[in-house]
Amino acid sequence: MSPLLDELVQALRCLPGVGAKSAQRMAFQLLERDRAGARRLADKLIAAVERIGLCQRCRTFTEDPQCSLCRASGRDDELLCVVESPADLYALEQATGYRGRYFVLHGRLSPLDGRGPRELGLDLLAERLAEGQVKELIVATNPTVEGEATAHYLAEIARAAGVSPTRIAHGVPVGGELEYIDRSTLAHAFSGRLKV
Amino acid sequence: MSPLLDELVQALRCLPGVGAKSAQRMAFQLLERDRAGARRLADKLIAAVERIGLCQRCRTFTEDPQCSLCRASGRDDELLCVVESPADLYALEQATGYRGRYFVLHGRLSPLDGRGPRELGLDLLAERLAEGQVKELIVATNPTVEGEATAHYLAEIARAAGVSPTRIAHGVPVGGELEYIDRSTLAHAFSGRLKV
Repeated sequence: MSPLLDELVQALRCLPGVGAKSAQRMAFQLLERDRAGARRLADKLIAAVERIGLCQRCRTFTEDPQCSLCRASGRDDELLCVVESPADLYALEQATGYRGRYFVLHGRLSPLDGRGPRELGLDLLAERLAEGQVKELIVATNPTVEGEATAHYLAEIARAAGVSPTRIAHGVPVGGELEYIDRSTLAHAFSGRLKV
Repeated sequence: MSPLLDELVQALRCLPGVGAKSAQRMAFQLLERDRAGARRLADKLIAAVERIGLCQRCRTFTEDPQCSLCRASGRDDELLCVVESPADLYALEQATGYRGRYFVLHGRLSPLDGRGPRELGLDLLAERLAEGQVKELIVATNPTVEGEATAHYLAEIARAAGVSPTRIAHGVPVGGELEYIDRSTLAHAFSGRLKV
């Protein structure tokens, strides 16, 4: 394989889920059938890396000072949903009818990895709550150990600001079968049962 | 999703095997965790698209006038293996101990798609055979209908130049089970049986 081709294959492996074999297939396919697509992809990669930063208000990805969700009028300023990543924000926005605002942590508390309150923008969040508009802080961090620790911390911040913290429900996934659900999810679902 | 981010997701979909969901995951991951990788990928894409062309002699991908396989001394000039794509060449080079030369068609005869002998570089192949060094033309086109038609055509060119054409064997894949092999492969394997 020519050195340039080999470098392209290596570079493609930075994409998640792309191993040696698929990277090779991608490189050959682009060179053989879609050079225009490859060039467009290169342009978009550079534009995204150079121009996409964090929204000043909610820290999601945007090329503007404030993202479209923060600028949108007609969303409920009393609800603020905290997520770990822009991908989580997007997933919620797609799946739910939520019409409040968001705040993106870009991670979760993980002191060992040097991720403390400052890295997660919690000072910005505290300022936001101090504005007084938010009534409910919906904590939608992932149900991992670190995500739960982060959720506890966020709930404290909310209470300190006189905001009511809520947590998204954890339980049996819709369509899931009890028999195949892991123990801790099942325990969660059982103890968190609701009146019907 | 911001317009730039959306454009990046769309651009990523030019990669084979990447749908809407994985493109999204890739875009978020690059922006969140590997901006350096994204920039490197963009550079390599541009370099590859701008500088990789076809080897003057065998038509495989290379950024040089002639590829490293054609320039290599110590390979057997009496053997010439014809493949449909650089990916096929690479697969053979990885899997076999073949030490002859290659010729890449970049496709197969397909008159309806406007792919005739000229598009496959068969004039260049005829010139190569006319040089008189090649003794055996190994036809390694794919065992599809068009690949077989191309193989027949190549065999005629070889015979016309006094070169002996051979075809790679088709049959039961190693590790395959007869019960699960399609009929036509099984018929091929049966009629092409060899003395042991």
